[in-house]
Amino acid sequence: MPEIKVGDYIFTRLRQLGVESVFGVPGDYELALLDLIGDSGLSWKGNPNELVASYAADGYARINGIGAFVTTFGPGELSAYCGMAGHYAEYVPVAHIVGYPSVTAADSHAIMHHSLGNGIFDMYEKMAREITATTVVLRNKQTAAQDIDRALTIMVEQSRPVYIGVPTDMAYAPVSDEGLKTPIPTTLPPNDKATEQNAVAAIHEALEKAQSPVIVVDGNCARNNALQVTEELVKAAGLPYFVTAMGKGFNETLPNFGGLYGGGASYPEVKKAVESADVLLFIGRYANDFNTGEFTVKVNEKGVIDLQRFWLSIGDQKINVSMNHTLAALVDSVKKTPLSKTAKAVTWDPYPMKPEASGPLTQDFLWYAIGEFFQPGDLIIGETGTSAFGLGAAKLPKDTFMYNQTIFGSIGYATGAALGSFMAAQETGKFKRGILVTGEGSLHLTVQAFADLLRYNVKPIIFVLNNDGYTVERIIHGMEAVYNEVAHWDYSTLAHTFGPAFPSKYHGPIKTAEELTKLLQDPELREECFQLVEVKLDKHDAPLSVRLTGAAIDEFNKAQ
Amino acid sequence: MPEIKVGDYIFTRLRQLGVESVFGVPGDYELALLDLIGDSGLSWKGNPNELVASYAADGYARINGIGAFVTTFGPGELSAYCGMAGHYAEYVPVAHIVGYPSVTAADSHAIMHHSLGNGIFDMYEKMAREITATTVVLRNKQTAAQDIDRALTIMVEQSRPVYIGVPTDMAYAPVSDEGLKTPIPTTLPPNDKATEQNAVAAIHEALEKAQSPVIVVDGNCARNNALQVTEELVKAAGLPYFVTAMGKGFNETLPNFGGLYGGGASYPEVKKAVESADVLLFIGRYANDFNTGEFTVKVNEKGVIDLQRFWLSIGDQKINVSMNHTLAALVDSVKKTPLSKTAKAVTWDPYPMKPEASGPLTQDFLWYAIGEFFQPGDLIIGETGTSAFGLGAAKLPKDTFMYNQTIFGSIGYATGAALGSFMAAQETGKFKRGILVTGEGSLHLTVQAFADLLRYNVKPIIFVLNNDGYTVERIIHGMEAVYNEVAHWDYSTLAHTFGPAFPSKYHGPIKTAEELTKLLQDPELREECFQLVEVKLDKHDAPLSVRLTGAAIDEFNKAQ
Repeated sequence: MPEIKVGDYIFTRLRQLGVESVFGVPGDYELALLDLIGDSGLSWKGNPNELVASYAADGYARINGIGAFVTTFGPGELSAYCGMAGHYAEYVPVAHIVGYPSVTAADSHAIMHHSLGNGIFDMYEKMAREITATTVVLRNKQTAAQDIDRALTIMVEQSRPVYIGVPTDMAYAPVSDEGLKTPIPTTLPPNDKATEQNAVAAIHEALEKAQSPVIVVDGNCARNNALQVTEELVKAAGLPYFVTAMGKGFNETLPNFGGLYGGGASYPEVKKAVESADVLLFIGRYANDFNTGEFTVKVNEKGVIDLQRFWLSIGDQKINVSMNHTLAALVDSVKKTPLSKTAKAVTWDPYPMKPEASGPLTQDFLWYAIGEFFQPGDLIIGETGTSAFGLGAAKLPKDTFMYNQTIFGSIGYATGAALGSFMAAQETGKFKRGILVTGEGSLHLTVQAFADLLRYNVKPIIFVLNNDGYTVERIIHGMEAVYNEVAHWDYSTLAHTFGPAFPSKYHGPIKTAEELTKLLQDPELREECFQLVEVKLDKHDAPLSVRLTGAAIDEFNKAQ
Repeated sequence: MPEIKVGDYIFTRLRQLGVESVFGVPGDYELALLDLIGDSGLSWKGNPNELVASYAADGYARINGIGAFVTTFGPGELSAYCGMAGHYAEYVPVAHIVGYPSVTAADSHAIMHHSLGNGIFDMYEKMAREITATTVVLRNKQTAAQDIDRALTIMVEQSRPVYIGVPTDMAYAPVSDEGLKTPIPTTLPPNDKATEQNAVAAIHEALEKAQSPVIVVDGNCARNNALQVTEELVKAAGLPYFVTAMGKGFNETLPNFGGLYGGGASYPEVKKAVESADVLLFIGRYANDFNTGEFTVKVNEKGVIDLQRFWLSIGDQKINVSMNHTLAALVDSVKKTPLSKTAKAVTWDPYPMKPEASGPLTQDFLWYAIGEFFQPGDLIIGETGTSAFGLGAAKLPKDTFMYNQTIFGSIGYATGAALGSFMAAQETGKFKRGILVTGEGSLHLTVQAFADLLRYNVKPIIFVLNNDGYTVERIIHGMEAVYNEVAHWDYSTLAHTFGPAFPSKYHGPIKTAEELTKLLQDPELREECFQLVEVKLDKHDAPLSVRLTGAAIDEFNKAQ
């Protein structure tokens, strides 16, 4: 029976699942394993540290479908646990391959480097279990292939991270390659037909009977790869539709687009429209504090229909049907029998008023101007904090996509995720430009990712909002507090420092609306190379949605 | 009864334990808590990311005695787990204070940011339990003060990290300040007198009867604050003494210093002396792979006496007496009744031969020259990899100290640890110069710590060994492998980029022995400011001890 090395089995599976680039940091427990990466046509894209690798794999998976990275036992993997918890919270399917000490060393309780010095070897896997869909350490070559397949199947099915430990004396162990002939399923099985039909009929009827139904596209729409079928539904139904902060990125160029709804953080007309709706069809509702204007959502909860990956709820009823198949059936149903009432037209401008375009740069002008700068084919990544809140106000052209890590909310994420996403965009040809918008405080956590953006020739456009510290935190609590200060860097020399051999351009510091307007029209900013724009903002200025909710967050933290 | 806020209770305790600076990264669950830091005379030293904060707290504790850092629930704490596992493995007492969502939010299973999005709040604490001596989340103000005291007492007693979660609605809860009148014990209780006397008599007798006894100072000597009493013993006993890789840093200027013993990685005369000894008194043996020339130690195990924090072993016998009290009693015993045999004199040079001082810079010359550059009052930190192995060959003058993270071995550690250690050296006045020796691959993980070294005015001297990738890994496996490559940075602009407002000097790239010799005598390198020396080395060159053990490590990984 033909045999294959355990390492090759893993990498072949990843290649079958569409992975091209694998991220990570080498360590001596994984070096021999890494020798195998090329065997399956995968490409090693090493990173300066493991947190960046985990974020890059996350960003890669959000565009490519699946991500993977390799680290070493102990320091390597532990440095990526923040990234993995983010994969878990945000339904990002990423395989974390961990190079383990040999089975023999573990069984003899040797005091190996990277351990806790006590001859125990299973504590890190125990930790990983809390933040993954499943873990496995390949200790047995008789079951290794099935163990790998089980983990990767769970990863794809649940759209969540998994952890695969590969001891040094297992990476080259021969196993049967028979399993590789059966692909890992990449779609969920069809719903039970009768259950799905009943569910679709119930939704259809609820929308039909409603006086002012709306559709709200929330975060778990994109996280379930349901963007396209949801767009079909929005078109077929003709109802006013909205996005949440986490849902931002969905096509907002249709005439029935109503704006971004986030409870008390919404613009008045958006708020009124959503909160007066009698039926609300949520696509993948994910109602955390940052996604709801700090729990200030006031909708008719009895009229909420919520479609999730494995189930939907309609009123008090929960039905076990999966989102994507149900949406497809709902589209068919609505096409076959269109809703009889003409939908209420969207009569308001879904974006804030055009702000003053002169004088010191304000957040209000920044987000307006950035929206004007976006063009079809852009992939835009915002960072937790000012930019995620601010980008909600920016207008997205057709054929763009945007995301931020709304639920887990780890600052520093966006820079690493941009690396992975922009690489996936190049590989898949799905997007033309990669644009990262981050704050200087967030950039400080993972700035070494810049070196990879440069050496892997990713050519991003990066806006760094330099507002002298953690502004979102200032607004929440500690307006002048020393802990909200960060170090002052020279942003003009960053790209040179991290990649002197690669072309890069710096623009800034941009301090006025006029300077920003001029820069955004400058052909130099459109030249394909690493572009960094430093935008100077007042440290007390913030996007409107932050101004509306900052106090609520502090109050919530204290009062609850 | 006088009351105090829970947050103030914690910070007062830390101040009582000698902490002055607290590291960390702010997050909204901890902002109000951070407002209290100054109340107890503590000073906030914020960092660019949590991994750097955890390493800085580690380095601070190694000089100051205790370290502390504050992060936020979820992303913040998880980013520090690698640092905490290092605290645990290397017996570094560090309090990790974590700002938690409110008790009410947790009890109502709200979907808070930084959680996994499932209304569960205890999973991160569960993870932390695996890598700490104890954890507590303060959910009850009736027991909060005792909970804090219990955790901090365990931290000091076990010399290991602890985790204290402080929900937003507990940080300001009033508790009795009565407990603060009783200090946390900072020394272990005395040993049982009779047991200690018997143990000391047995050790004394074993040394007296031995033909060629030696003392080996290993890693857990410094980690148990036993450097001084061990020095007294070495002087009183007059026996040849040796250090291990992890023990390096102990006074090596006494005439009976024999060199660094690391099994097959030792110089021939050192190896012979240790391996022919019939009785070996280990002070804090910590026999992991990196500390034993990859398990190539060949000593008379039947003659080993090993003193540890809570016990000692002599032959097959294990006796429950703690190291420091036992050592003090042993010193008294040996002073009272000196060993009758004149100790065998150390007849060899404990350092390698002086290498060729001209031509392209070699590792052998580098470590010799760096040793010559060291002076009394230096605090030297090496990084896992080339520099830790290389520094073993450097001569340490009197009144210096050196360490690296030998057991846990996380690359990137040294840069962050240097920040904390050098700050503690300034606060305590224990050392005059702080010297960091790291590799460029390791520097890439945590380079943002440079911004703190600059803005906190630490004035380090930093040697960056630029050898085009992960050289230690090349030697172990993958000499020309793409995964052992790292990005090429411009090291001459690093200090300016990270702290343009602060004075700094760059020297390099140093490519020859002559250039290095000249530089190390240059008064400019002695000016008190941030000094960075870039040393260029051949990518295949390595310290002698790595050349001796690299193949053994690869063999061990594969063959075991």
